[in-house]
Amino acid sequence: MKTVKVCASKAYEVKIGASLLNDLGAEVAAVTKIGTAAIISDSNVWPLYGEVVKKSLKNAGFSVISYVFPAGESSKNAETYLSVLNFLAENHVNRADCLIALGGGVVGDLTGFVAATYLRGISYIQVPTTLLAAVDSSVGGKTAIDLDCGKNLVGAFYQPKLVLCDTDTLNTLPRDIFRDGCAEIIKYGILYDEALFAQLEASGLAFDREAVIARCVELKRDVVAEDEFDTGSRMKLNLGHTIGHGVEASSHFTVSHGKAVAIGTAMISRAAAKYGICAQQTCDRVLDILTRFELPISTNCNAQTLFDTALSDKKRSGGIVNLIVPEKIGSCSIRPTPVDEVKAWIEAGL
Amino acid sequence: MKTVKVCASKAYEVKIGASLLNDLGAEVAAVTKIGTAAIISDSNVWPLYGEVVKKSLKNAGFSVISYVFPAGESSKNAETYLSVLNFLAENHVNRADCLIALGGGVVGDLTGFVAATYLRGISYIQVPTTLLAAVDSSVGGKTAIDLDCGKNLVGAFYQPKLVLCDTDTLNTLPRDIFRDGCAEIIKYGILYDEALFAQLEASGLAFDREAVIARCVELKRDVVAEDEFDTGSRMKLNLGHTIGHGVEASSHFTVSHGKAVAIGTAMISRAAAKYGICAQQTCDRVLDILTRFELPISTNCNAQTLFDTALSDKKRSGGIVNLIVPEKIGSCSIRPTPVDEVKAWIEAGL
Repeated sequence: MKTVKVCASKAYEVKIGASLLNDLGAEVAAVTKIGTAAIISDSNVWPLYGEVVKKSLKNAGFSVISYVFPAGESSKNAETYLSVLNFLAENHVNRADCLIALGGGVVGDLTGFVAATYLRGISYIQVPTTLLAAVDSSVGGKTAIDLDCGKNLVGAFYQPKLVLCDTDTLNTLPRDIFRDGCAEIIKYGILYDEALFAQLEASGLAFDREAVIARCVELKRDVVAEDEFDTGSRMKLNLGHTIGHGVEASSHFTVSHGKAVAIGTAMISRAAAKYGICAQQTCDRVLDILTRFELPISTNCNAQTLFDTALSDKKRSGGIVNLIVPEKIGSCSIRPTPVDEVKAWIEAGL
Repeated sequence: MKTVKVCASKAYEVKIGASLLNDLGAEVAAVTKIGTAAIISDSNVWPLYGEVVKKSLKNAGFSVISYVFPAGESSKNAETYLSVLNFLAENHVNRADCLIALGGGVVGDLTGFVAATYLRGISYIQVPTTLLAAVDSSVGGKTAIDLDCGKNLVGAFYQPKLVLCDTDTLNTLPRDIFRDGCAEIIKYGILYDEALFAQLEASGLAFDREAVIARCVELKRDVVAEDEFDTGSRMKLNLGHTIGHGVEASSHFTVSHGKAVAIGTAMISRAAAKYGICAQQTCDRVLDILTRFELPISTNCNAQTLFDTALSDKKRSGGIVNLIVPEKIGSCSIRPTPVDEVKAWIEAGL
């Protein structure tokens, strides 16, 4: 097991390793009062891990209640949010109790937002069961739900008490969902860590899960420590995301977030090479590793469609979009770009 | 005009005085970027002050949009919350823009919660137009909406950028609503300030508005500075509220919050005198001043009903209720009381 300490506005630990779900109850008891633990999960994850989590919490002395909603991004909405809130209120969950987010990014983001706002904030524990959630959404305290107008438009910055990632849960992930998480891991390599990138080039999909997840969490931890409330350097984590959001939205979310980010990363790398911001060799390494991880590097969408959908997103501010652009493997820059010029970047990246 | 500086997790000013609405635009421009100002108001307040606020903001260079919902506590719900969020998203309000909460406590609490969560937090300005909002809900950063299960069950701690209280707006308040605010002002006297209490005993309803509001805001400011996240001494502000919530809820909210708090304060004072915690004279002064301000000091509800409704509230935690009990004018204590004993307190207070 590896432990990464995160020091945001509140300090907490991220524990990563095999068979950790069995110890969940004891780990939760170490960071909260024994009371009611409300497990929030989805219809994919609950049948697989609900019982073991419930048993572990009960053995540690918790009263356990659970709320399970249909799996999928379409559940990350106001309706599910309100249903969970009402469920907690009806069960008299109070400020001394805690929530357990058992699942991927949708479960984590939604449960985190419920935790941030129910009774103006109660404790919650992230138990990510997807690679993407393990390396991205479960760390850093960004919680959110979607509105009809767009993704993640409502939320809060709210840190968990503990993140517990049982790497065994990744074994039940469909290969396709696993690769979505790989796109984020590759992103950390491009952004911050040439050694991690080189390690992934060598291992391909057979990378050491515990070590690589822990390294990604450390990298994210450092970014969050520097910019918890996302007003500056944290925006680098949006590498591949501006165009990626366009790919995701114009496919009506049939292209997954991970694959959309892979395409976005490939496109911004091509554009960076064309504009002379990075070497062609850097771009080629990015395209090669994405391909090695069986991730897409191009889209059928045209530039106008991508431009329109990418910029309907909340990251537009005062007519300037901050593009995250690779300079070399392990280093990217934030380039404030007038909205009108983004289309040329998209065209250069296609 | 009086200015009170508040130093919570963010520092801001509370400005109190006549004719301030005319200067609103300039005041807002001094604390935020010029962009879109979204005024959130209700159907009582908007017809009275919407135009002057809009004009003032436009003159200062803001683009102004507005959302008006039906007045009343029943609007402080998830439905209105979501409608406002969707309104902001549809109008592409971004992180550099700000919200203006123009109205009483319902408008302030709901707008504050929208501001805390839209795009994970944007700026907002409180413009309280009721006495209760001026001395209580607009200061301190507690934002909330109600669920069917109970009041204020969902919310956030989130500080405004500025609070601007135009005392002229109190002139249009129905006398009944004005007296609701008086109950809170009297509460500050009982809790913290014998001189304020004595001043109110002398003036009755004709008190100096600017001076008294400013003094109450100072008192609340000091409480919030000591305990922003309501984990300790801030709970003293709940004087009269535990039983008051029972009165309010068992009347199905036909008894207003202010009057319910007045009854709750009278009851806890009677019980305190009976238990020898305060002198009979202290209790008498409390009952006399409430009567002088035309506030009720008794209820027709029986003890069992009050007990059941008071304790369905979120302040119950681990079987202990923190009762706030007067010891003398200007000083109250927090008494952790087993739930089972609260009924005896209610009986003693009837």
